[in-house]
Amino acid sequence: MNDTAIAPLAIHTPRLLDRIDALARIGSIPGTAGCSRLALTDDDKAGRDLVVSWMRDLGLDVTIDAVGNVTATMKDPAGPPVMTGSHIDTVATGGRYDGNLGVLAGLEVIETVLTSGIALRRPLAVSFFTDEEGSRFPPDMLGSLVYVGGLSLEEALEIEGIDGATVGEELERIGYRGPGSCPAAEPYAFVELHIEQGPVLETEQRQIGAVTSVQGISWTEVHIVGQSNHAGTTPMTLRKDPAVVAGSIAVFVHELAHRMGHPQVGTVGKVNLHPDLVNVVPGSATVTVDLRNTDEARLQEAESALAAHLDQLRSDHDVEITSRSLARFEPVEFDPRIVELVSATARDQGIEPLPMPSGAGHDAQMLARVCPSGMIFIPSVDGISHNPAEHTDPADLEAGANVLLHTMVSLAGEGL
Amino acid sequence: MNDTAIAPLAIHTPRLLDRIDALARIGSIPGTAGCSRLALTDDDKAGRDLVVSWMRDLGLDVTIDAVGNVTATMKDPAGPPVMTGSHIDTVATGGRYDGNLGVLAGLEVIETVLTSGIALRRPLAVSFFTDEEGSRFPPDMLGSLVYVGGLSLEEALEIEGIDGATVGEELERIGYRGPGSCPAAEPYAFVELHIEQGPVLETEQRQIGAVTSVQGISWTEVHIVGQSNHAGTTPMTLRKDPAVVAGSIAVFVHELAHRMGHPQVGTVGKVNLHPDLVNVVPGSATVTVDLRNTDEARLQEAESALAAHLDQLRSDHDVEITSRSLARFEPVEFDPRIVELVSATARDQGIEPLPMPSGAGHDAQMLARVCPSGMIFIPSVDGISHNPAEHTDPADLEAGANVLLHTMVSLAGEGL
Repeated sequence: MNDTAIAPLAIHTPRLLDRIDALARIGSIPGTAGCSRLALTDDDKAGRDLVVSWMRDLGLDVTIDAVGNVTATMKDPAGPPVMTGSHIDTVATGGRYDGNLGVLAGLEVIETVLTSGIALRRPLAVSFFTDEEGSRFPPDMLGSLVYVGGLSLEEALEIEGIDGATVGEELERIGYRGPGSCPAAEPYAFVELHIEQGPVLETEQRQIGAVTSVQGISWTEVHIVGQSNHAGTTPMTLRKDPAVVAGSIAVFVHELAHRMGHPQVGTVGKVNLHPDLVNVVPGSATVTVDLRNTDEARLQEAESALAAHLDQLRSDHDVEITSRSLARFEPVEFDPRIVELVSATARDQGIEPLPMPSGAGHDAQMLARVCPSGMIFIPSVDGISHNPAEHTDPADLEAGANVLLHTMVSLAGEGL
Repeated sequence: MNDTAIAPLAIHTPRLLDRIDALARIGSIPGTAGCSRLALTDDDKAGRDLVVSWMRDLGLDVTIDAVGNVTATMKDPAGPPVMTGSHIDTVATGGRYDGNLGVLAGLEVIETVLTSGIALRRPLAVSFFTDEEGSRFPPDMLGSLVYVGGLSLEEALEIEGIDGATVGEELERIGYRGPGSCPAAEPYAFVELHIEQGPVLETEQRQIGAVTSVQGISWTEVHIVGQSNHAGTTPMTLRKDPAVVAGSIAVFVHELAHRMGHPQVGTVGKVNLHPDLVNVVPGSATVTVDLRNTDEARLQEAESALAAHLDQLRSDHDVEITSRSLARFEPVEFDPRIVELVSATARDQGIEPLPMPSGAGHDAQMLARVCPSGMIFIPSVDGISHNPAEHTDPADLEAGANVLLHTMVSLAGEGL
């Protein structure tokens, strides 16, 4: 790395913060700093339109592929780009940094390079991928999964969301079913900047995480059918109560993750009873189980334990239980050369990085299937994310964007 | 009782079945025999209009009180009536007999008496009471509670439903805020015919239950506030997960009722997480707990056990838990003279009655505060109720309506 040449290069923090703020005003949650822009909704379209307008303002080549992923690439030089990116969809009660930061920091990196006039051997590119959160359409990381050929376009377009609409219909409706092919051309390398969404960096008092891996994710939807009945007249011995089964699953998943110990986590985030009335034993219930581990064997162990518990509940409560996988991704190891480059770049900036796994799934883990990939983490205050109270200090945003800048410039100038 | 005079008197079963069928077509649930007419909705209004038209066809005096209770009384003789009645609102997934039978059998009894030309010392009356189910507006038995002065009209009109509308607004909207005063004039006596909604009569192979009492009801809404966060990045040890607490409450209530033994029952019928997404640890949860017992001391014991469990959960999971009572009624003993009259009348019809408590709450328990009251039960197939599959054989409907007929005639002719 040529320190003399790139030392003065730095992103323009107020410009980055302004863009973050402007994007967060779309679908903002009143009284909070957070926002709600579920994938392919009207608010998501408005957010996309705004980011695309910024991409065009910079004179970038903007392509939209058939699943709505948007990529903006410098017009020259030619060749596979050094790519960054993330997503701009959010969960229903989302913060303003999750995903959005990675896209807008990428835009900021490109604007900084274009303004500086430095020459690169490879072009830079920034993408935002469709439905990374998976809150509306399972699985999460849908757009980047299709981008790398992990799921066929046809299957992706037919996925039905929580409101019954399909990915294909909604892409058409908001005008983001583009002409670009899926899978898309492979980048030279991919580096994503993201907030940690957990408490580790803050606890360890580090400003930069060099992400070594992403934990595996297993999402299961469990459907329980019992016998709807009167809450007053049905003796306990005659009940087939799906609410009790759903409750037992929530408690079991929590205790299982505790018992298995770190880094296993387990969450029941969604519970729906039918008919959901105070004086009626429900006839059915649907719950989701989210299990994650950095170790594939341990993740499979958690899945087996859940399946055994469901068998037990089926027999104890005389209910029907069916389950289906909503998403399943094995743990991913990032390219050690990228992890090392991120670490070295942070040290060049005077920051001692923390090598760490990612607890959340990210688009970078999909890109890792087709090119050398890695991630940069910056701290989340109190570890809070997927919550309007999500916050990261401006100094950390700046540090992260500058590590991204110099990592990308290094990859584009000299390579691995 | 004058057997010679009343022996030939019998209700006209096809007419009763036709009315049950016509009313069940309003708000019917496609593909089932059941219906969905939550209190004070458009469907409830349509059902009310139909029943009122039948009342007027019989030349009865129809009065509507300020909380929407409707009473139809024979024009003569004068004096406090021998009253029957029930409700025509249903739960969201209701059957066609729960409540509706009691109203339409009452109408059938009056039509039978009017057609027969027999002279009575007291008039007969039939009522339907507003919002017996409580599925839309808590508490259940709202209309009859106000009818007997157990809750002020002003308080009742301000009650907010699950959809945010108030009782007063919805009464005005559907045109059932009548001029009749609340509390209303006391009847001479009250007898209600109802399906059992449980499996006891069927199991004991009896056609008629002489209801001795109604179990006490305790409804509690529990609200849990934890910390919404990312399901992948938040270590288990840092979580404050309301879904786990809600699940534990459902399991605890079930186990508590089992442990306390019959007749204690306990149900968590409603669970709502926020934001209710697969990959988000919920920030809050609301659950309802329905506890019932025929013994007030045992019911209080169950309430105390629940409160102690909530205390434990509060400390184990570091969440905020608040609870409020949605409904609380002590167990009610019916007038022994009415219970005995129902039993004697059944025996006169050649049916050996089963003395039994009611597991469900009923309007008759409210009327018991102001006049001698009782109930007649008939079997529910498989004990199923609050379910579109609710069913009672026509022969049982006929037997129940005839016991109601002769019980009312006896009360109106000779008295207690």
